[in-house]
Amino acid sequence: MTKPALTPLAESLPASVPFVGPEAQERQMGRTFTARLGANESAFGPSPKAIAAMQKAAGEAWMYGDPESNDLRHALAAHHGVQPENIMVGEGIDALLGLLVRLYVGAGDAVVTSAGAYPTFNYHVAGFGGRLHTVPYNGDHEDPDALIAKATEVSAKLIYIANPDNPMGSWHRAEVIQHMIDRLPSGCLLVLDEAYIDLAPDGTAPAIDPDAANVIRMRTFSKAHGMAGARVGYAIGSAEVINGFNKVRNHFGMCRISQEGALAALQDTGWLSHVRQEVAQARDRIGAIAQAHGLHPLPSATNFVTIDCGHDGDFARAVLAALVAEGIFVRMPFVPPQDRCIRVSCGTEAQLDAFAQALPKALAQAHEKLR
Amino acid sequence: MTKPALTPLAESLPASVPFVGPEAQERQMGRTFTARLGANESAFGPSPKAIAAMQKAAGEAWMYGDPESNDLRHALAAHHGVQPENIMVGEGIDALLGLLVRLYVGAGDAVVTSAGAYPTFNYHVAGFGGRLHTVPYNGDHEDPDALIAKATEVSAKLIYIANPDNPMGSWHRAEVIQHMIDRLPSGCLLVLDEAYIDLAPDGTAPAIDPDAANVIRMRTFSKAHGMAGARVGYAIGSAEVINGFNKVRNHFGMCRISQEGALAALQDTGWLSHVRQEVAQARDRIGAIAQAHGLHPLPSATNFVTIDCGHDGDFARAVLAALVAEGIFVRMPFVPPQDRCIRVSCGTEAQLDAFAQALPKALAQAHEKLR
Repeated sequence: MTKPALTPLAESLPASVPFVGPEAQERQMGRTFTARLGANESAFGPSPKAIAAMQKAAGEAWMYGDPESNDLRHALAAHHGVQPENIMVGEGIDALLGLLVRLYVGAGDAVVTSAGAYPTFNYHVAGFGGRLHTVPYNGDHEDPDALIAKATEVSAKLIYIANPDNPMGSWHRAEVIQHMIDRLPSGCLLVLDEAYIDLAPDGTAPAIDPDAANVIRMRTFSKAHGMAGARVGYAIGSAEVINGFNKVRNHFGMCRISQEGALAALQDTGWLSHVRQEVAQARDRIGAIAQAHGLHPLPSATNFVTIDCGHDGDFARAVLAALVAEGIFVRMPFVPPQDRCIRVSCGTEAQLDAFAQALPKALAQAHEKLR
Repeated sequence: MTKPALTPLAESLPASVPFVGPEAQERQMGRTFTARLGANESAFGPSPKAIAAMQKAAGEAWMYGDPESNDLRHALAAHHGVQPENIMVGEGIDALLGLLVRLYVGAGDAVVTSAGAYPTFNYHVAGFGGRLHTVPYNGDHEDPDALIAKATEVSAKLIYIANPDNPMGSWHRAEVIQHMIDRLPSGCLLVLDEAYIDLAPDGTAPAIDPDAANVIRMRTFSKAHGMAGARVGYAIGSAEVINGFNKVRNHFGMCRISQEGALAALQDTGWLSHVRQEVAQARDRIGAIAQAHGLHPLPSATNFVTIDCGHDGDFARAVLAALVAEGIFVRMPFVPPQDRCIRVSCGTEAQLDAFAQALPKALAQAHEKLR
């Protein structure tokens, strides 16, 4: 009896996970983290109105969610000044990125991103047999000129850029991104990941043009809205690009509870302002903690601060390992020279107290280890 | 400027939806349904313990769900007497079916199912370029012999069968399915969809053999557990087949709230017994209502009853349209001769009262229309 065989593409893929979850690390360590500062979750929580809406919806969870996410899609369209046909709601940006790659990237098709940018996007490109081309960061910023040049060179189907960027927290002004859009090579779609845009300074997001056929923007309720666990992301694009998702998406995939929560979160603009303030204060505090120990915090337009540890990747990895051992969940960039840094999410005061306490110990241990 | 081009496969796919949701129908009609009996949701709701767990988790939704669904997977493994490595949790059976097809079905690969069986499975097969071969139902049952014969003939990668079956409510005894497993052609994987198994008589599910490399079973919290809107399904299979999902799945796709709800639902065996009783009573009542109007209810091992309307598909479609117009959401099989039936989900007493009241009017209208 021959076993069922995977497709050649599936057979070629490793069983992998772009990120190990903090729970898995906790199980390995046999204890829980004191501070959960590694996944850029919003420790300030969802809007109380969103929590209430989700609690109400929990009792109605016997009903499938609306496969059109109609109410949420209409509310988002109104919020952004576009039509509902310009919005696709999905199970987080991760799921939408997967579908987008599936729609546009066939075996051997070229895709361009920055070396060290979002691993989950790369995972999807590999998963559909695409060929990934990378360009380096430039001064800890993604490099629009290099991305455009590479995409032109390799006739890329997609370019990925996050603005603001993860894992560096850096950002470009709207004009820089718009200039990038204006120079896209023919047949190339720009995937503009704006997961952190709600936390960025005004002037970071270019105006949304619902008729632009060559750009799709990704937004999420996971970051500023504090609903990472609810899995609600959305794409904004031309009606034609958006309608493509209807060819391949899991129509009944959206959790009913999450749809209700996102709708309430969108309407609670007061909570969003509150979170922005909390995040700004936490960024300052993380920066101050870093500086107090001779480290260099990078400017951030996100809900995390990337801290230059002042040495190489081995040193930063040692700091990270020591922090984790001290019960502080943090992550770091994967690729040099950005891997000289660790990345710390904005947390509550108590969480940042724990970080402040653990950091000098971790630095001492890292110095000791690499002496 | 050339627009970005979809892959040839994606370009060839229609933008479609396997099922139109009741909310979309309500928006079209401009009013809500009186009775929601069309999607085999459990009107008896989730376990109160599951609701409480989801309400608690709503406040913790700022954290991503555990990408390994560790606690739920371990609980499910213990429940089924297998190892956690034999379980994959996903965003409903629909999502798992999509991933499974992606893993095994390449362009032109043969897949076998019954004509009129689950459209979402067919949607996934088309979506990955597979070639679908169908065999007819036999006496309103899926036909294991015909499925095996066809799979052997076309060298199928996958066979899909639901036991109990949707949309007919029929079922095979465990021995029949086991005999089917024993005769699978070489290289063929049996996708055994057991979404309704919790509502079937003892002796419907063959014993789970975690070492069997040629069968994968699909289970869900959407039906008996009343959590369709939470999107929690799982697959049971050999460690090797299950690990395949780790090559392509959306690791952080599971809603944290839903994971907690499913865990609590699994533990509340009392609620499951209660739902089984409610479903049995509702099946009897739907049958009695059908018979009172000269229709023939088919035996059911599910939370719905398929009712033979005694004429052809046009008549049943007219009955269905009239029921919908009367505010009763029901669905029906798509393919003759099964499309002589309508399919009514087990509802609360009030919902079935509404159905009982609407049915004679709908029958009269259908007779009038087709006279």
